[in-house]
Amino acid sequence: MSEETRFAADVYGDRLERAVAAMRAAHLDALLVTPGPDLRYLLGSAAQSFERLTCLVINADGATPSVVVPKLELASLQGSAVSDLGLRVLDWVDGTDPYKLVRSALHAGSRVAVADAMPALHLIPLAESFSGLPVSATPVLRELRMIKDEAEIEALRRAGAAIDRVHARMGDFLMAGRTEAQVAADIDRAIQEEGHTEAAFIIVGSGPHGADPHHEVSNRVIQRGDVVVIDIGGPVEPGYYSDSTRTYVLGEPRGEVAKRIAELERAQAAAVAAVRPGVTAEAVDAAARAPLTDAGFGDAFVHRTGHGIGLSVHEEPYIVAGNDLELRAGMAFSVEPGIYFPGEWGARIEDIVVVTEDGCESVNQQPHGLTVL
Amino acid sequence: MSEETRFAADVYGDRLERAVAAMRAAHLDALLVTPGPDLRYLLGSAAQSFERLTCLVINADGATPSVVVPKLELASLQGSAVSDLGLRVLDWVDGTDPYKLVRSALHAGSRVAVADAMPALHLIPLAESFSGLPVSATPVLRELRMIKDEAEIEALRRAGAAIDRVHARMGDFLMAGRTEAQVAADIDRAIQEEGHTEAAFIIVGSGPHGADPHHEVSNRVIQRGDVVVIDIGGPVEPGYYSDSTRTYVLGEPRGEVAKRIAELERAQAAAVAAVRPGVTAEAVDAAARAPLTDAGFGDAFVHRTGHGIGLSVHEEPYIVAGNDLELRAGMAFSVEPGIYFPGEWGARIEDIVVVTEDGCESVNQQPHGLTVL
Repeated sequence: MSEETRFAADVYGDRLERAVAAMRAAHLDALLVTPGPDLRYLLGSAAQSFERLTCLVINADGATPSVVVPKLELASLQGSAVSDLGLRVLDWVDGTDPYKLVRSALHAGSRVAVADAMPALHLIPLAESFSGLPVSATPVLRELRMIKDEAEIEALRRAGAAIDRVHARMGDFLMAGRTEAQVAADIDRAIQEEGHTEAAFIIVGSGPHGADPHHEVSNRVIQRGDVVVIDIGGPVEPGYYSDSTRTYVLGEPRGEVAKRIAELERAQAAAVAAVRPGVTAEAVDAAARAPLTDAGFGDAFVHRTGHGIGLSVHEEPYIVAGNDLELRAGMAFSVEPGIYFPGEWGARIEDIVVVTEDGCESVNQQPHGLTVL
Repeated sequence: MSEETRFAADVYGDRLERAVAAMRAAHLDALLVTPGPDLRYLLGSAAQSFERLTCLVINADGATPSVVVPKLELASLQGSAVSDLGLRVLDWVDGTDPYKLVRSALHAGSRVAVADAMPALHLIPLAESFSGLPVSATPVLRELRMIKDEAEIEALRRAGAAIDRVHARMGDFLMAGRTEAQVAADIDRAIQEEGHTEAAFIIVGSGPHGADPHHEVSNRVIQRGDVVVIDIGGPVEPGYYSDSTRTYVLGEPRGEVAKRIAELERAQAAAVAAVRPGVTAEAVDAAARAPLTDAGFGDAFVHRTGHGIGLSVHEEPYIVAGNDLELRAGMAFSVEPGIYFPGEWGARIEDIVVVTEDGCESVNQQPHGLTVL
């Protein structure tokens, strides 16, 4: 791997400071973060501990944060910014009580927020010693994680270019007579070869399977004439995800397929064109729906238009009806309208875009329309 | 994949009944289970939903359990036993409140238990409507999950045979001049080729890296003469894990290496010999330590002797000092003593064993001692 697994330490120092400021604004006393995307955001740590507690403890008084960590897993912190930033490390061994260690690291006050990823396994014993249920840390961390800085945008661009290269190779993998699972196995390898640390998801929805937006992969043999939805992605270092969908057809498209996918392409382009600072998330969703409604099959678009992306595949902002959040420069999300005709076929076109000062930039550059293989 | 992703439906019907009985014995009113190993145990569902709530609701009154699920992810239940068992399915769409749906499915009483894997994201909004903090479901589910039935033991045997075949091929992957990461990439492929659905973890600890029990993989170039710890595993359908460690040396072992690893082999064998119903977990841990202490390097064995295994890589019972749990037939766990000499080298030998009526059966059959490549 030539890419680094984290940014420079001062990036994380800055994020921790901004987290403290956000905690104060939200009248929180402490923030507890177990492994997951929030911990990676704040420390550059990709730790994946589950049953043994690892927990970052940040007090709103601005004291040096602490990290509670199993002694055996100290090495998992080595790649992180913990030592560069001079954080306190509180290690523990099997048979001792890590929750007591967390409590010892908490200063005054009792309004505690916890990361969304914290499992009940740890939340329940921690909460027993607080007065009342903790609150979600997401309102505090949302602002920070939602607005990507230049280094994060660069990582999203690298991820986008990597998944574009996989789509560009699709003609080598996707052909009649092969099963969806065989195609997916080749895509899996290509996702890694093109620079991802792993494939996080692979949807190969051929023929009628394409009509189920959450179909993954099956042993169905792909037929000549099938429309095939390919939705793929994974993380590139330091942990930022790609996510791109293209729709293919094996041979000549039948009946209404080409015409409807041309409408879908217009819908996707209309939504992208609507993206700029000050526009609401729901307005982008509406912009994607209008061309399809006008074309007479708006009800075939059965899901939200998009989701934020970064250290998580799905994060804020969600591009969905009812979300009046105003877009700001630095937000990154998918624009992925789809149309689904149950029992027959489906199509989806998805790019990741980053909001700029006056519009947006797409990190994906592969052709959007129906690709004939 | 020729293996099924779950057992026959009556296996899950029986587990649900036993869960209700265990809930009553523990004076619980309801059990809430989000995706993770507990859900796979109870329904045969491998759903991995995160931000949209999927939740099994079991009432202690014995009424038909309900499953709350996003309408878009209904397909994720198709492979499960939900429809065969006639469970109630309560689906929801974006913009509606899934937590209200869970509350509507709860009957009388307020003592609610939640699965350990439930993230704070869902636990906090659910808990806000309960009187008091929920409790962990683990005391209820531990008994069920800890004692494996014959079908589960058979799955563990298949997993063990699959990872044995990977170790048997190690001479093709592990050689001087290659990096740990290159060796790991080959092992990753072999783990899948030999019947796992994925590689869950790969430790290639060469030379001084072997002295860190939780080292994973690096770009260190493996040298002639290195001792190398290889700890690998992954799930086989329907979701049961393999986990096996062997220690290799490239060329002639130096100094004390062969002698000390022979002692380690004795320690591992002594622990396995100690396993039978009625013996405590801590007694097995002690049995692994005695030979190493006698040999003068007991303090080089810095971790517990083992962990339970099944639908999770790490689960109960933990084979550790202080755990006076008595072993029973059907329990499955690792026996994996290791010795670590910081800055120099390390070694570990690990098999998965299943407790039988009068001893135990190992699911791993590869030679235990130092393998010279």
